Amino acid sequence: MSAHFLDGSEPGVEGLRELVQRALALEGGAAPRRVPGKRIVAVFLNPSLRTRTSLEAAGHMLGVKVITLSPGTDAWALEFGDGAVMDGLTVEHVKDAVSVLSGYGHLLAVRAFAGLTDPEEDRADPVLNAFVQHSRAPVLNLESARWHPLQGIADATSWTRHLGTHLQGQKLTLTWAPHPKALPTAVPNQVLLTAAMMGMDVTVAHPEGFDLDPQVVHRAADLAGHQGGAVHVTHDRQAALKGARVVVAKSWGGWSGYGRREEEARVRAGLSDWMVTEADLFHTRDAGFMHCLPIRRNVVATDGVLDGPSSWAHETAHRRMWTAAAVLERMLGEESPWSA
Amino acid sequence: MSAHFLDGSEPGVEGLRELVQRALALEGGAAPRRVPGKRIVAVFLNPSLRTRTSLEAAGHMLGVKVITLSPGTDAWALEFGDGAVMDGLTVEHVKDAVSVLSGYGHLLAVRAFAGLTDPEEDRADPVLNAFVQHSRAPVLNLESARWHPLQGIADATSWTRHLGTHLQGQKLTLTWAPHPKALPTAVPNQVLLTAAMMGMDVTVAHPEGFDLDPQVVHRAADLAGHQGGAVHVTHDRQAALKGARVVVAKSWGGWSGYGRREEEARVRAGLSDWMVTEADLFHTRDAGFMHCLPIRRNVVATDGVLDGPSSWAHETAHRRMWTAAAVLERMLGEESPWSA
Amino acid sequence: MSAHFLDGSEPGVEGLRELVQRALALEGGAAPRRVPGKRIVAVFLNPSLRTRTSLEAAGHMLGVKVITLSPGTDAWALEFGDGAVMDGLTVEHVKDAVSVLSGYGHLLAVRAFAGLTDPEEDRADPVLNAFVQHSRAPVLNLESARWHPLQGIADATSWTRHLGTHLQGQKLTLTWAPHPKALPTAVPNQVLLTAAMMGMDVTVAHPEGFDLDPQVVHRAADLAGHQGGAVHVTHDRQAALKGARVVVAKSWGGWSGYGRREEEARVRAGLSDWMVTEADLFHTRDAGFMHCLPIRRNVVATDGVLDGPSSWAHETAHRRMWTAAAVLERMLGEESPWSA
Repeated sequence: MSAHFLDGSEPGVEGLRELVQRALALEGGAAPRRVPGKRIVAVFLNPSLRTRTSLEAAGHMLGVKVITLSPGTDAWALEFGDGAVMDGLTVEHVKDAVSVLSGYGHLLAVRAFAGLTDPEEDRADPVLNAFVQHSRAPVLNLESARWHPLQGIADATSWTRHLGTHLQGQKLTLTWAPHPKALPTAVPNQVLLTAAMMGMDVTVAHPEGFDLDPQVVHRAADLAGHQGGAVHVTHDRQAALKGARVVVAKSWGGWSGYGRREEEARVRAGLSDWMVTEADLFHTRDAGFMHCLPIRRNVVATDGVLDGPSSWAHETAHRRMWTAAAVLERMLGEESPWSA
Repeated sequence: MSAHFLDGSEPGVEGLRELVQRALALEGGAAPRRVPGKRIVAVFLNPSLRTRTSLEAAGHMLGVKVITLSPGTDAWALEFGDGAVMDGLTVEHVKDAVSVLSGYGHLLAVRAFAGLTDPEEDRADPVLNAFVQHSRAPVLNLESARWHPLQGIADATSWTRHLGTHLQGQKLTLTWAPHPKALPTAVPNQVLLTAAMMGMDVTVAHPEGFDLDPQVVHRAADLAGHQGGAVHVTHDRQAALKGARVVVAKSWGGWSGYGRREEEARVRAGLSDWMVTEADLFHTRDAGFMHCLPIRRNVVATDGVLDGPSSWAHETAHRRMWTAAAVLERMLGEESPWSA
Repeated sequence: MSAHFLDGSEPGVEGLRELVQRALALEGGAAPRRVPGKRIVAVFLNPSLRTRTSLEAAGHMLGVKVITLSPGTDAWALEFGDGAVMDGLTVEHVKDAVSVLSGYGHLLAVRAFAGLTDPEEDRADPVLNAFVQHSRAPVLNLESARWHPLQGIADATSWTRHLGTHLQGQKLTLTWAPHPKALPTAVPNQVLLTAAMMGMDVTVAHPEGFDLDPQVVHRAADLAGHQGGAVHVTHDRQAALKGARVVVAKSWGGWSGYGRREEEARVRAGLSDWMVTEADLFHTRDAGFMHCLPIRRNVVATDGVLDGPSSWAHETAHRRMWTAAAVLERMLGEESPWSA
């Protein structure tokens, strides 16, 4: 266990439930526990709308200063190779940048997406882990190649808000969705892991060839098993939706699609019927519809789904502010965080 | 009436006068009415120097957090079409982005310039109005296709500071000026509307073909009429300057220039004598010279005008901080704003 | 003397020593002297990692708001020519931008690197000096064409921390280092000037043709002489390292290299043995190794040097936060700064 927040499992199952309850209390009007004098250095190597703004808003609630470094406006050609002779395009080694930046704040936050070209590289989550390795401060993951824990805790808070605290055995369906591009798997991985921690009955539905990393699926199945839940994987979308209490839609590039993205793109072009429609929701058990946003409307899901009464997508996005505040209270507060 | 601040008419004439007085009081040393705990999310879809910096400075005075999103550093390919099938280049619908962002703050501010390709689109002020439509918080216009109300109130404060509170019937000349490019009309529209609200005797001077939107001119004439003022339009620049107490210079692309900007550019190249010179000011009645900045020196106006004793351009730019503070006090304060 | 902080000489030798002591006290846990209600407008015309983040962190410690303008995200095609007819690419004259921005804060900070094309232009430090000329507020140099005073004071603090307050006569070697590109001389100039002010025995070692501006060397020699120190220049790297207590490595383009950078690049390609190695440090008198960062590892210095026990590079980078705070306390505080 560590003082970092990297994949959302760090607080443990009980710690996660406490964070969810705290986020709901904050949303309901409880006073934030202010930690004035603290600073977060937040490094965005990829663009961000919700994550950045909700982090800044949560920081403001707690009296915390967030120093934000944006992609593109600064020289960010970082070197990652150990022992590299830096006579090429990279201008600074990650070990130097991270060591220095982490000393200017009390928490170092970073966003760095998957490269989607090398499966083992993405599995190693190289940027996030280099930050962890070289940081003098706890590291907060703002979405990495592999995980998006601040999204995960917002999701769990919405499940709890709508379905109650007893999530064990409740059916959640994570369904692959169409998209013009191959996308990273940080969000579906996170949904899977978080739902598994809550002991939910998780079904992942995706077309053939659009599998998630089997290591992630296996880890989630293992976690779910210990919490009274389960993880199923299927290509039968209709069966997967049946009886679901939560439907999470997300597009992603398949784990077996590395190195053959063009072929995958051709297959994907024929899969537009994986778009979530209002008719799909009829097969569920009054399921709430979720998507992390941004969403391609009428490609991933219809306007009717997104703007209809079953959608929890926007309220969950708003909740990002309260859940981030709950996480920051713990990471920056007086009490020792989950590492204790 | 609404709680937004979109074209500066929302407070009404009396409300506008009160804002001007409050801005002058703040500039004179009155203590700002702090509204700590409040947040502004400010979305810049176009660059900004004065507006952004003065907004942040005004927010700081009031103890307000301003979260600024800059153009280019984030993914901002927004979709505006209702019902659009988003399988192309746009990555997020404005309704989703605005709904979420507005929930993270107590005020949503936005800057989005005119496209200058379709007159009806610019007239509809599509970005600003999409923000208004989908925001959960009051919207503050930081310059749209059509209006720039924070500039307008700074202008009105300078007029009041120099000419007194009784502005009715005082002569203000808005003169078109040369520029290498066709520019949006938000600023001249705003000068016209604001001066009309103050009941001034407004003359718009421009070369043939460089007319403002007749709808705006008509609305301003109507407003001015109710306040004891008037709006005149002329191509006779010398006559327009005669007796003026205020000369506002600004370049703009003509309302009738849509679809024929190349032809307009050729005409414009021959209009360099519309540059404001010190000699021009001799014809006025000790007029103050104004321009919203940034200004092309020795193209729009000479160095002599800008750096001379008649220029109110720089002091008005500084005033942007105090006038923004006066607006924020009302929009974020305890009392209900002008909507009440 | 002025209230600005441009080349670090403004506080005078005694003032510099006091700033160093104050920075060490802050680093040791002394409470910052807060100056709430103050604002800094920080204009970055070039990218920044350490300077920007440490400035924001220092500002936060003092309760000061830092409004940061980043390169590229705003329209920053500034005109510098007096009397220029601005019908080309520049959109705003520096005199207008600076006059306005400086009025929104209590301190104006600016970063603008050397152009490296015209020696007299770089010597004139045109952007920094235009800011000084037109600013209504004191100006803080965040690295200009010629100087980097916030780096200089951090360096002096590390020297004092390791070698004691009596720096007079202690040997510091500034050694040129390899790099794929010709770099500006702000940092080496600053090391030279600061060490001279502290009365150190300074040796500058560089290959033939990589001389620093003789005006800077002359000024430093003069200053050092008054403080019981000296400045030597040599091409004999081994002799220069011998007995040094501090080794500062930095690459730069030669003063005589203007106008023939391609030729210089060919020469530079053969100078890889100027890289600082652990073996080099054996010749010193237990010297600390310093570099301002970012550093090209295994080009400027080896991993062994940077990660070894002799390196003061990272601790000095961290110190940037405390030294910036010490400078801001003086520039923004109640007492008059060094101008008094």
